[in-house]
Parts: sequence; C-alpha cells; structure tokens
Amino acid sequence: MRAALERTVREEIRAGALREGVRLPSSRALADALGVSRGVVSEAYGQLDAQGFLVTRPRAAPLVAAVPRTAAPRREPEPPAPAPRFDLTPTTPDVTLFPLTRWLAAAQQVARRASSATLDYREPRGEPALRAALADHLGRTRGVIAEPEQIVVVQGTAQGIFLLLRILSARGASRIAVEDPSHTTQHERIRAFGFEVVPHPVDDEGMAVAGLDADAVLVTPAHQFPIGSVLSGERRRQLLVWSRERGGLIVEDDYDAEFRYDRKPVRALQGLSPQQVVQLGTVSKTLAPALRLGWLVVPPELADDAGHTKRLLDDFSPALDQLALAELLTRGDYDRHVRRARVAYRRRRDRLLAALAKHLPGLTIEGVAAGLHVLLRLPSGVSDAGIAEAASRARIRVPPLSAYRIRPADDGGLVIGYGRLHESAVEPATRALAKVIEAHL
Amino acid sequence: MRAALERTVREEIRAGALREGVRLPSSRALADALGVSRGVVSEAYGQLDAQGFLVTRPRAAPLVAAVPRTAAPRREPEPPAPAPRFDLTPTTPDVTLFPLTRWLAAAQQVARRASSATLDYREPRGEPALRAALADHLGRTRGVIAEPEQIVVVQGTAQGIFLLLRILSARGASRIAVEDPSHTTQHERIRAFGFEVVPHPVDDEGMAVAGLDADAVLVTPAHQFPIGSVLSGERRRQLLVWSRERGGLIVEDDYDAEFRYDRKPVRALQGLSPQQVVQLGTVSKTLAPALRLGWLVVPPELADDAGHTKRLLDDFSPALDQLALAELLTRGDYDRHVRRARVAYRRRRDRLLAALAKHLPGLTIEGVAAGLHVLLRLPSGVSDAGIAEAASRARIRVPPLSAYRIRPADDGGLVIGYGRLHESAVEPATRALAKVIEAHL
Repeated sequence: MRAALERTVREEIRAGALREGVRLPSSRALADALGVSRGVVSEAYGQLDAQGFLVTRPRAAPLVAAVPRTAAPRREPEPPAPAPRFDLTPTTPDVTLFPLTRWLAAAQQVARRASSATLDYREPRGEPALRAALADHLGRTRGVIAEPEQIVVVQGTAQGIFLLLRILSARGASRIAVEDPSHTTQHERIRAFGFEVVPHPVDDEGMAVAGLDADAVLVTPAHQFPIGSVLSGERRRQLLVWSRERGGLIVEDDYDAEFRYDRKPVRALQGLSPQQVVQLGTVSKTLAPALRLGWLVVPPELADDAGHTKRLLDDFSPALDQLALAELLTRGDYDRHVRRARVAYRRRRDRLLAALAKHLPGLTIEGVAAGLHVLLRLPSGVSDAGIAEAASRARIRVPPLSAYRIRPADDGGLVIGYGRLHESAVEPATRALAKVIEAHL
Repeated sequence: MRAALERTVREEIRAGALREGVRLPSSRALADALGVSRGVVSEAYGQLDAQGFLVTRPRAAPLVAAVPRTAAPRREPEPPAPAPRFDLTPTTPDVTLFPLTRWLAAAQQVARRASSATLDYREPRGEPALRAALADHLGRTRGVIAEPEQIVVVQGTAQGIFLLLRILSARGASRIAVEDPSHTTQHERIRAFGFEVVPHPVDDEGMAVAGLDADAVLVTPAHQFPIGSVLSGERRRQLLVWSRERGGLIVEDDYDAEFRYDRKPVRALQGLSPQQVVQLGTVSKTLAPALRLGWLVVPPELADDAGHTKRLLDDFSPALDQLALAELLTRGDYDRHVRRARVAYRRRRDRLLAALAKHLPGLTIEGVAAGLHVLLRLPSGVSDAGIAEAASRARIRVPPLSAYRIRPADDGGLVIGYGRLHESAVEPATRALAKVIEAHL
C-alpha cells in the first residue's frame, strides 16, 4: 500500500500534475481520505522526501520539490498580438456605445422585483417575460409573426445554430446549404455534426436559389455577410417555393438587421412564411456580444423539439440577464438605444464612404445600405489575402473576402467593418489602408 | 404613402404580428424612422383608429386594439400545477438564502471597472479572472489541483456534462458508466449521444467498481445522488486503478460537496489524480441555479479540446456574470455565504432527522452526513412510487428512489430534500408525510 501511494504521487509529480511548491494534504488528512493508517502515508512521504520529490517539514504539510518532468511542459497562453492601430473587424459592434448604466439599473430592478422562484431552475425556452417582449418587439420592428411559445432564448447566434443543427441531425438531415462567401465559424459548426456544407453563390440579389439541393439552408437575407447585398423579392419567393417543395428548413440569420440606413428595414423573411422559416436573432450587435443573449423564432411544430434540445444543451439561459433585457425592451430603452447607435454608425459609414472615394477613387464599394461593414472590391488578379497580410503588418486589421469563401473565386475584396471605427479614426485609417493597397496595385 | 403605411400596419395587426396592447412608436418617432412627414403618420394612425385597429390617445403613443386575427389562434401555455404544500424536491437549494445584494453590488462594481473589451467577444474557456479565482478556491476547499488553463467555465453541470459527452463521442467512446440509482436527466444526455448507459450498483461505500467496463464513468464521490453515501477510500483506489489500466476517464460530479455537516469535507477525487479525473462543479446549490454558472476542471491534455468544444456550443459564457462570481470568490463573500448556508441547512437536517425519528421510528434514514437531502428507506415490498403518488395527492412533492433507478430493484425509499424546507415547516411536513406512508404500510 505504501509503495502504491508512493508510486502514484511520484508519477503525478513527474507528469507535472503536482507542481513545484504545491502543498500536499497532511499525512493525517490523506490517511483519512484514503482510509489507511497515518503511518503508511508518513512513510510514503518520507520515502519521497528521500528521493527528492517532496520537501517534508515537521508539523507541516509537505511541499512538492522541483523535479524533471516526464510530460512536455504545458503550453502557456500565447502573448496577445500587438493591438492593431486600426481595427476594421467587420463582425464586432462598438461596445463603448453599450448603455451600461441602463443595463445595470434594469438588472437591479428586475432582480429586486423578481420572486425567489426566478433564482431556481427555470423553463428551458427562457423567461416568459422576455419571450413575450421579444414577440412584440420582433413583430413591430422586423415583421416577425410569432407567439412567445415559438421563441427559445439562446446563448447568442452560436448556440442558436448549434441547437438547430442538433435538431436537423436528429431528423436525419445530411446536407446544409450556406451562402458562399459566409461566416466560416458557422461552416465549422455544420461540419462538426458531420453534415455536408453545400455552398451557394451570392450576388447583388443575395443568395442564388436555383439548383438548391439541401435539407436546410442558412441565409442572411437582410444584409448578406460579407457581400452586403439584400435578398431580393424574387429570390425570397424562390426560396419559399423551394422550401415548400423540398420540405427544407430556411434559417434566417438576422444578425444586424436593426442597422439599415438608406431606407425602411426589409421585413424578416420569417414574416412571409412562419411555418418554413426559423429567425435567428441576437443582441451581440445592438448591445454587446458578452451578454450572450439571442433567440430562435421557430415554426410552431418545432417549438417543443427546440425547447427539449435547449434543455439537453444547458437546461436554460441565465434568468436575471433575460429579465434585464425584457425590461429594456418593454421600457423602450432598447429601441431608443438602437436608434442612437444607428445614427452613430450611419455617420461613420458616410465618412468611410467619403474617405474611400477620396483615397481609393478607382475601387467600387458594395453593401453600404446596412449593417456594420462594407465590401471594398479589388481589381481581379490582385490577392486580397496578400493585401490583408500587408495591412496587418501595418497594424490594420481587416479580413480579405477570400477568407470567407468555401470555393475559391477569382474576385477579391476587403471586408471593412466600421462598427469599431470612431469617426475621428475614419480618415487616417482609410489613408493608411489606401497606402497599403496602392503598394499592391 | 399614407395608404401604404395604413395597409401595412393593418396587415400586421390582422396577422397577429402586432398583438393587442402593443405600444406603437409615436407618430414623430415613426415619421423619423420612415423618413416621412409626421402628418402622414398621424393621418394613418387616425384612419386605423377610426377602423378600430388602434387606440390613439392625445400626446401618447397609440396602442393596438383587440381585433379578430386572420392567423389561426395558437396554443396557449398550460396552467401551472397547484403548488405543493410541502416541496421536498431533493435537487434544489433554498434560493431565498441567495446573497442578492452582494451579488448585485459585485456585478455593478465589476461592470464599472471592466474595460470595454470585456463586453466584446471573449475567450471560450471563460474569464481569466474567474478561472484563476476558481483554481485557488477549489485547491483550498476541495483539494483540486489545477492550473487556470485546465478550467472551462460552463452553463452549470448540464452543459459541463454535454460538453464532456461531445468530447468522448468525438474520441470514439461508446459506453458511459453511471451510478444506479442516479440523476435521470444525465442518463437522457448520455443516451442523446447514442452512448450505452452502463449502470453500476451503489452501496454504503458509494459506487461498486468491480467489473467496470466503460470508456468513462460519471460518479458523485462526495455524496452519492440519491443514496447519499460517500465513495470509500478503497473504492477511490479501485477507481483510479481501473482508470489507469483501462484508460477510462473519471467524471467527478461534485454537485453539493460544500455541504458536509458531521466531519471535514472529503477531498475531491481529482486531487488524487488530476490526469485521470474531470471535476465538475456548479454554484447551483451554493448560490442559485438561475445563474447558470459551473466549471470543468479537465486533465491538461483535454484542456484545448474542452475549450474548442465550448466554442462550438455557444462561443463562451456571459462575461459580466463570470466576473461577478470571481469578485465574490476573491472577496471571500462566497466562502462566508457557504458557511452561513451550511449552518442553516444543518439545522434543517437535524430537525428533519428528529421529526422522522419521532413520526416514523420504524424506518431507517441514510445519507445524512452531507448535501441537501436524505434517503428514507421503506420496507421491501412497499411501492415507493405509489407512496410518492399518494404524497403528491396530499400536495407533498417528494420523489421515490425507484424514479432514479436504471435497473429495477426491490428496495424502495423516498428521497427527501430539505434544501427548501424552512425550519418551521419541518415538523408539519414530516407529520403529513408520515400519515401518507402509514396509510400504505
């Protein structure tokens, strides 16, 4: 027994699991834990001390000594890359606009008002108050037609898609169509389920529908990511017809629909056919990604399945955060914030367009009507990845269009996000980017 | 333009997208949003009021009136079951003990202190501040040996187990051993991955290890659920030997280890062999389930895989809540709260034991040393399910032991939780329960 204990501790130390300076349990404590006599443990500790694995001290728990490890030293987290001078990441909002004080005030109020049951285990689909507020809000602002029972609160778009993929997988789906180009992390999620990712080309009318052959399709109708086009009325009709004939599910990623500048927001596809479309929404762009609050609006016949799957994943989402969002929605604070943010983003966009016209007059810009990014087209034959690398060496963070492609294409571009680009930074950022690009043309 | 607006709103109301009582934007706000003159909107609102679709009020935003819908009426949520007089559910703590004020204060402080980057997309494994605080806390209170890099913050035990099952599934595992009896929702999660659930019997030394044949085993060493026994030193050694020989992963569900009354807490199994054991922890019992905060402590070689899997599931957990918990831990507020709660629960347990001895002197009680529940054994041949049903008719909520069984067994019992049983309620609850039981004996 003594030998076994001795060997175990030695192996742990050699493997690096017990690190230098770690205090081991006292011989009494360990003896209790293992149900052996204290003498056995003291003896083992003594041996290990003699062998140089431990440093034992009278009337004190022994410490692990410094010894050569068998295991490779564990990787330390990498040092953060030098912060870019200009961050043109297209997928992140300006979190400095987040109405922190209002959020905290709402959180305080709902927490103090809430019954103690609110702190207990809750309904997988989410807080009824939030689902009711979302049903009203989405009906008013997005034309979404849904009862609260069709809404499932999720941890942002990421969990929303994971949850849907699980449902589709359980229903025997095997092919998921996506826009090409589109979010690569979503391709990863789809492949992680063993699905085939079926890419469909995108043009200035949004995703091409002709020839669509899949069990479900993931689209961004309001503002295609990253091209920026809006799914045309004709394509919307085609998509609904496809869904009806094929029985395929349409998943509408409505990620930045609140930010539309030049005309009335395009109504959500879900509102045209609530039986065929799942609308996927998030506050990651309107409030902050770190809140991890999003929702699924599912067809009535999927509602039970979606709730059951949410329960499998993590039982339910944090209740107090849900109630705080419900409070902001019902008070109208959420709408007011979105309007304020829209004004700020529009101003940045206008400045960016002006600066691009000034510094890169030869290049065309697409997808300017909405969202938090534009697409700067590059002359064919120019490597957008090469330019993005050169930009990053100049400490400008901007992704190339090709990074979002599934099938390689010969067109190139830069996906320029202005969500984080403060007005004062637009001009210098554009000038710096223009310098990098011109060096490549 | 007025007509178009009027028609749109009318359709939305008819379709049920705008539900009765919903507040529409003020005519000024909507006019701004649509870029039309305010007069146009007021006129349209006036028409809709005249047609009975809206209720307009001077100097106030109009409300949607009650109108017949074109859409079919959708299913309403079912009415809640009548609340039990006595809730003896074993898996829930007393959330009225939750230190709400301290929690809110900590949340405020960390939010105000946090850099704006904290509101952005974050690291999948969780906030470094929380993982560091947990590494220290778990080392101190549970003898867990871990670097912050080995810790992944998850949405409670539910997501922790789902995440591990995904990793095991990707690694080709097919058989997961569990204690019989144990949590049925965990069996569901295991089966949802297509794994075989391999039941192993439990006695007063915890789970039997002999003949264990599985790729991983899920155990509750500190306080077996629902039997309440502690995994003995001998069984711990056997389990570690099994893991080393078979290469099987040990998942230690440490769900209520903080609550031990009659002697020093048993050190976590993880501390004996960090290479072979995953420790799974949660604040659902110590603070509140609705916070959805838990963690995995994984062996170093699983850390990257665990972080990657968390990213697949939902990117990361809400950052501000994580920082609030880190604050409570580092301030010592968490420890102080656990101590206070332990005193309260011990008092309830002692009263419960006294009341059971008085009203049901013939029956034996097990698993009293820790946690939030005890097991009341029933004479063999008596149907515990039948008694639980009778109890529920008497508005006493208490689950039968057989409800947690995988393989039917001829012993029966009631799993009596006292987490929610206020001291004053112990005596009447026990008396009422005794009446139900005696009627069946």
